[in-house]
Amino acid sequence: MAPKEKARGTEALLTLDFNNLTDDALGEGRGIGAGELSSLEGALASAARDFNARRKKGLLPFADLPYDPDLPKACRRLASSARRKYDDVVVLGIGGSALGANAVLAALRPLNHNTLPAARRGWPRLFVADNIDPEGFAAIMDGLDLSRTLFNVISKSGTTAETMSQFMIVHELLGKALGPKAAGDHILITTDPEKGVLRRLVRERGFQSLPIPPGVGGRFSVLTAVGLAPLALAGVNIEELLAGARLAQDDFAAAPLSNKALLFAGLNFHMATRRNRPGLVMMPYADGLARVADWFGQLWNESLGKALHLDGSPAGTGQTAIKAVGVTDQHSQLQLYMEGPQDKTVCFLGVEGFRKRVPIPRAFGDQAELAYLGGGELGGLLNFERLGTAMALAESGRPNLSLLCPRISSAGLGYLMQTLMVATVVSGTLYQVDPLDQPGVELGKRFTYGLMGRQGFGDMAERYRGGLRADGRYIVR
Amino acid sequence: MAPKEKARGTEALLTLDFNNLTDDALGEGRGIGAGELSSLEGALASAARDFNARRKKGLLPFADLPYDPDLPKACRRLASSARRKYDDVVVLGIGGSALGANAVLAALRPLNHNTLPAARRGWPRLFVADNIDPEGFAAIMDGLDLSRTLFNVISKSGTTAETMSQFMIVHELLGKALGPKAAGDHILITTDPEKGVLRRLVRERGFQSLPIPPGVGGRFSVLTAVGLAPLALAGVNIEELLAGARLAQDDFAAAPLSNKALLFAGLNFHMATRRNRPGLVMMPYADGLARVADWFGQLWNESLGKALHLDGSPAGTGQTAIKAVGVTDQHSQLQLYMEGPQDKTVCFLGVEGFRKRVPIPRAFGDQAELAYLGGGELGGLLNFERLGTAMALAESGRPNLSLLCPRISSAGLGYLMQTLMVATVVSGTLYQVDPLDQPGVELGKRFTYGLMGRQGFGDMAERYRGGLRADGRYIVR
Repeated sequence: MAPKEKARGTEALLTLDFNNLTDDALGEGRGIGAGELSSLEGALASAARDFNARRKKGLLPFADLPYDPDLPKACRRLASSARRKYDDVVVLGIGGSALGANAVLAALRPLNHNTLPAARRGWPRLFVADNIDPEGFAAIMDGLDLSRTLFNVISKSGTTAETMSQFMIVHELLGKALGPKAAGDHILITTDPEKGVLRRLVRERGFQSLPIPPGVGGRFSVLTAVGLAPLALAGVNIEELLAGARLAQDDFAAAPLSNKALLFAGLNFHMATRRNRPGLVMMPYADGLARVADWFGQLWNESLGKALHLDGSPAGTGQTAIKAVGVTDQHSQLQLYMEGPQDKTVCFLGVEGFRKRVPIPRAFGDQAELAYLGGGELGGLLNFERLGTAMALAESGRPNLSLLCPRISSAGLGYLMQTLMVATVVSGTLYQVDPLDQPGVELGKRFTYGLMGRQGFGDMAERYRGGLRADGRYIVR
Repeated sequence: MAPKEKARGTEALLTLDFNNLTDDALGEGRGIGAGELSSLEGALASAARDFNARRKKGLLPFADLPYDPDLPKACRRLASSARRKYDDVVVLGIGGSALGANAVLAALRPLNHNTLPAARRGWPRLFVADNIDPEGFAAIMDGLDLSRTLFNVISKSGTTAETMSQFMIVHELLGKALGPKAAGDHILITTDPEKGVLRRLVRERGFQSLPIPPGVGGRFSVLTAVGLAPLALAGVNIEELLAGARLAQDDFAAAPLSNKALLFAGLNFHMATRRNRPGLVMMPYADGLARVADWFGQLWNESLGKALHLDGSPAGTGQTAIKAVGVTDQHSQLQLYMEGPQDKTVCFLGVEGFRKRVPIPRAFGDQAELAYLGGGELGGLLNFERLGTAMALAESGRPNLSLLCPRISSAGLGYLMQTLMVATVVSGTLYQVDPLDQPGVELGKRFTYGLMGRQGFGDMAERYRGGLRADGRYIVR
């Protein structure tokens, strides 16, 4: 059976239901009306043409990643040999070098992957060191046997201060523990195929390495070696993940109003710009998908939050993706979503069937208040809570939409992530901004270089001192 | 030495710096001007009087919790005996019954508390089961030896569907594994002292129990038995935590513009309502404080997101607290904060010194791009990144403020949390809403009861079916 057929089976890998986003559900002028949907259709068709033209020119290489037959093979080979040599894999990476692997790992491996006994786990543990808090980094390093650990250093540019600091620390530790020669066996570098200090170190010192294709930025890199290598090392079925992503990319050929990537982009653009709802709550009702919301938060926010339009005129665009987790955050955030400012849309991310059944027994039969729970199961209760919340929001005039998977699967997750990446690029077209850059992060970096005393950034240290306000009236101890 | 002196020492446990929120830093009319600060002073003084009057009437019992000498003793006794009997403690609780313990545990125990070898940990592992995803719940249960586990069931009303379902499952498992009599030794119930089905079960079946004081809602309950019992069981110094909270409550006597709780409330109210910034990013630069942002997210959002003013007029108030973690989210969210819509204030939560030093060695000395990192340390880099980011935001006209702790400590965390709880109640006065209720969560619960077939909610099931929209044009597969 071809992977495509196998991945899709007979049911849709993803369903988009936006009934609760329509004027029919919310009242005239509060959601999207039939006429507005028609006029959106034209804009979406044009955005799709734009996407396809840019892809053809090689400007959107992320869209072609799922069709690459070689990379998964290379990752699979690496994983097969590493499985015997290493108990632990530690990713040194941050932002787009961390979020994709984290999201997929939580979804596709048991949620207790890292604490399962080795025999049941069957694959190395996977840690993602995506911060430089010394307490947090020490807590990760604390539990490792260096002689059985592989460090996967991930930075496209090789200049990421956080990742390079971690690498410098780890390289020294490995050298001291195992000797300089053996240390190299515990390092895998994922970086630009040609440029940068990490590539130079690969050439000069012979570290194992994998390439990050030029033109694929961090937040679009989950299906490059950035995501696939650590995921294969932890036992994820990356071939099925890619097969699902391919299906999503293929489905982008659908007509605008039957096209999930286009609709997701268009509906959220409508709510943000025509209905003045700058917030988009991404709310998975599944622990396994909770980190998909983190990954999406970078993808959406960093891509669309832009000072300038493509033509250079002021933009200040962007919709703030806010992470929530159901049912947990019904007990934490729902009050605000129900009664607070009308400034958000809620996107539920639901799973129709779970991979575990946990029945609720008919315990405490003498307590009438509990009788309705017994005989059900946790997954059923979770989904009834999602449906009840969606209905309560809609009845209160609060727009919401749902992305639904039949269950969490490798193919389904690939489909979901590719759909959201395509939707993000399409949204860039709708907002008329560049979804692939992130110029706004540079200034803070340059101040940090100045404060760290980096050569060539003395002016930034001076500018920092000049700009620093420490008026005692505004400091309260 | 009295706890007060011991907790405070010679340095402030918390510093509020709002230089980057002033018009001086941001430009006229973009932050808070000197005149506006003066006029805020009167409103804050009045809100403080209101707080004190309500406290005197017994309407704000959370403010008196830190002065209770008995509860910490009871929790300490429980913990001392439990330490020998249990390897694991599992909290069954959600929302306010989970977030406080989670936040404090991460801050005050090693970040790898649960994966440390038992001998180094010295106290039971602590798991907080705050969702009903069957896959997630099974992953927690998977690693337990029931004969060495204590389940702390926390629900004030005893009607929380999620917690009660978990309890029914666990009670049956314990009974099967250990026999009905022994099972009781593995259950601790924290609930209302008089009312509800959990209290009834305590009376009828003799379970161990702790009371939740009437008038203290979930999001203000971290310093009741809800938080203190599991924290003591995991080895947290709850006496110091309370001593810090006492100091914060005492410091509320300070004049408005020297009063951190009042200023935090007033400045955010100003930015939200006068500067149209409905978002408040809470961004700890410390892994140990990351979950404090989750706890704060419930506190702030559920307290201030209200449909009605105190006088019954329409409100729709609230500021959306958004969680971020530094430095990680500089690589994920900062682009949006720097260049996106001018709809947020960023609150940094910084730590001046860390409890671990991780030096960055002068590795790869031949690579010029890396030279500036060697010789520093991770904590220093983290703080320079925080400072660089704050300056970059301020230079770009983006308001931010900082809450700074000298280091993460039990007393400091108690001080911080009590300050934020007081600030939340004060904010309720400024917004003229009730910060202690959450009426907006009821409708969704009632739909869920209807869908679950609970007796007496047949009308909600019908209303659900009547309201359900499943127009095929708005469902895309």
